[in-house]
Amino acid sequence: MPFFDQATETLSRAELQALQERKLRSLLEQLAGRNRFYTEKLKAAGVAFTEIQALDDLSRLPLTTKSELVEAQHVAPPFGTNATFPETAYTRFHQTSGTTGTPLRVLDTPESWHWWGKCWGHVLAGAGLTAEDRLFLPFSFGPFIGFWATVEGSRQLGTLMIPGGGRDSLQRLQLMKELGATAICCTPTYALRLAEVARESGFDLGDIPIRVTVHAGEPGANLPATKARIEETWGAKCFDHAGASEVGAHSFECEAQPGGTHVIESEFIIEVLDPETSKVCAPGETGELIITNLGRIGYPILRYRTGDLVRLNPEPCVCGRTWTRFEGGVLGRADDMVIVRGVNVFPSAIENLVRRFEEVDEYRVTVSKRGELGELSIEVELAKNTDSENTRQAIAHTLQDKLGLRPSVTVAPHGTLPRFEMKAKRFHASGR
Amino acid sequence: MPFFDQATETLSRAELQALQERKLRSLLEQLAGRNRFYTEKLKAAGVAFTEIQALDDLSRLPLTTKSELVEAQHVAPPFGTNATFPETAYTRFHQTSGTTGTPLRVLDTPESWHWWGKCWGHVLAGAGLTAEDRLFLPFSFGPFIGFWATVEGSRQLGTLMIPGGGRDSLQRLQLMKELGATAICCTPTYALRLAEVARESGFDLGDIPIRVTVHAGEPGANLPATKARIEETWGAKCFDHAGASEVGAHSFECEAQPGGTHVIESEFIIEVLDPETSKVCAPGETGELIITNLGRIGYPILRYRTGDLVRLNPEPCVCGRTWTRFEGGVLGRADDMVIVRGVNVFPSAIENLVRRFEEVDEYRVTVSKRGELGELSIEVELAKNTDSENTRQAIAHTLQDKLGLRPSVTVAPHGTLPRFEMKAKRFHASGR
Repeated sequence: MPFFDQATETLSRAELQALQERKLRSLLEQLAGRNRFYTEKLKAAGVAFTEIQALDDLSRLPLTTKSELVEAQHVAPPFGTNATFPETAYTRFHQTSGTTGTPLRVLDTPESWHWWGKCWGHVLAGAGLTAEDRLFLPFSFGPFIGFWATVEGSRQLGTLMIPGGGRDSLQRLQLMKELGATAICCTPTYALRLAEVARESGFDLGDIPIRVTVHAGEPGANLPATKARIEETWGAKCFDHAGASEVGAHSFECEAQPGGTHVIESEFIIEVLDPETSKVCAPGETGELIITNLGRIGYPILRYRTGDLVRLNPEPCVCGRTWTRFEGGVLGRADDMVIVRGVNVFPSAIENLVRRFEEVDEYRVTVSKRGELGELSIEVELAKNTDSENTRQAIAHTLQDKLGLRPSVTVAPHGTLPRFEMKAKRFHASGR
Repeated sequence: MPFFDQATETLSRAELQALQERKLRSLLEQLAGRNRFYTEKLKAAGVAFTEIQALDDLSRLPLTTKSELVEAQHVAPPFGTNATFPETAYTRFHQTSGTTGTPLRVLDTPESWHWWGKCWGHVLAGAGLTAEDRLFLPFSFGPFIGFWATVEGSRQLGTLMIPGGGRDSLQRLQLMKELGATAICCTPTYALRLAEVARESGFDLGDIPIRVTVHAGEPGANLPATKARIEETWGAKCFDHAGASEVGAHSFECEAQPGGTHVIESEFIIEVLDPETSKVCAPGETGELIITNLGRIGYPILRYRTGDLVRLNPEPCVCGRTWTRFEGGVLGRADDMVIVRGVNVFPSAIENLVRRFEEVDEYRVTVSKRGELGELSIEVELAKNTDSENTRQAIAHTLQDKLGLRPSVTVAPHGTLPRFEMKAKRFHASGR
């Protein structure tokens, strides 16, 4: 069971806290007066950088929101005021997909890029990758940071990296087969899409010696039904991880797969707060993940409201890592939840139910508001030669049974629902 | 006028030769008995690695051809016998486009990948790039090595790198504008294609502060008419360079632009031989470029027949570099030449004539054999609102005047000829 940096991954809680506090003080020292965004923010909050010496002091710092970062970008275009160094110090540009608004741009220095790679080294080593592996990356390498950070993590781990941009899904499968790829990183959706393309093209996935799949970008690898489906189609072990462009890759699943993801606590300080009251959540309680990163001096994040819902599990893990875990991974996003007839519904809950049916190739969910009550309707696209009506009824019954709702379930003709290479968009709200 | 490594770039000839010989001896020492491909090849030729101590000894080594490298790949798939280390030592996979046959696969170790980046550092610094620049890379990052080596070169130079994969040409233009890109690397064809898309979309290229364009992958930046066209449309200085997946990036244009490209002589030993007789060509004589690389120990190349035609110019350059130059860059490929009615015709000669006409958006050349004589026909696609017949006649007249041939010139409807993001394929031969 390989570690990326065993000494750091097995520190005692006291040692870990001392490490975090040392890094935090060093970070704040470098930001004070240099980073315009945080210098102004702390001044407005009436907090001095030097007040923050220990983890217990952290709560004096104001929270940071994504809209503040976007606003900081408008103040000083194109890269914004969250910059600790002059622009010439930066060597990497990335931006978010911008599907929910203005793309957020982030810059990295050689040092912070090395830090990104170190975090990804933990993700890949956690999944059991070594220099023996051949890692296939099936994406086109636009400005989204996840692609590039995987490359840097693979470099630091010494794994052979095979770039799969600029070709279609079948060409990617063929290249993986020719080269004997043993591992792949992509969204859970795209792993299933590749399997669908293989099936429809008469390509035998068993011809590719993939043993590990690593996923991010959306929930899925943490949902038991989706995870099982990926593992079964690929004949591989499926690993979850989570991160964000403005934060870093902060958590990953170890080979022991204890039902959650480890937080890279040497590089991040995490808090879990009730999104309404900002009260600290106890272990086991679900709340919003608040994150402070410790190694991205050029574009830092202090107490960032991720919008991700998590539940901490500090119990020891059989893998030997002392780092705390997100039980069940990232459970969803606070703003993804919809209320249908008084019931809280998360997209991930629906996915986990629909993916139990291996006949389902794709699906789409629409929430419509009629009066004050919502209506949930689900379209499913089924594999060829499926008994459509039986499957449709079984899905409807399962959803009713588990969600306590009676969504309308309809069968869409094969090939009509959208397919995704990146983050999937399956959840739609229609107007009142 | 920035250097990448001034001391090395201005060595005297004697110092340079001593450096090359030291690196050559070290390379051969590491290959002997470890690299199966070259160990077998030298044994078959009856040459001992230890015989080669100086540049004068080099001619005892047999030449290496591309077909031998492809064959070595078939002998030990998927990566072949040209490997000095066990597979776990390698971290990067790339392959050639394979348009002219089986794709050739190449692996790099961390050390040889750093070497690739160093060579690209010379290319980018030679074009005047610094940490002040914002370098846009408009490609999708498949397994072609040029994309990735540019990223590594940019990293070593400290330039801000903006990856432009996974989006169409207009989206790329918009991102370049938003971010204030100052430099771009791509094929000459794609630089002109982006300009065409801009014109057709009402996008003003003047809104992008590009000051430098760096080109490779095909001739163009070394052809005066194409270079002038790129410089005029982009309002930028246009730089040529050359390299190959199995060789490295071996030559680049400096800011003085003396009408040719400098050879990175600290990393490559070059010879120019008559392709028929293998006799050494004197400076000024055109011959085939034979290349030995000195820093890619894991996948080395000794006396490789590139198929590229070059002409050496050892005269001092005003930029201060002592490295010899390819006069006019890579002049063409030995196997690209066709004989039409007894006249030797190179695709690059036709391009340089056709590109003088700024009305030409794209063109395609077909060589057909009728009996023993060839026929040349050229289709041109003209910008909207062009006086087609006048332009057609002017092109035909120029070709006749300069080539001594009477090719048929026809006007193709707008948008019907293929466009290219990668290497263009404009030269076609039809059967007898």
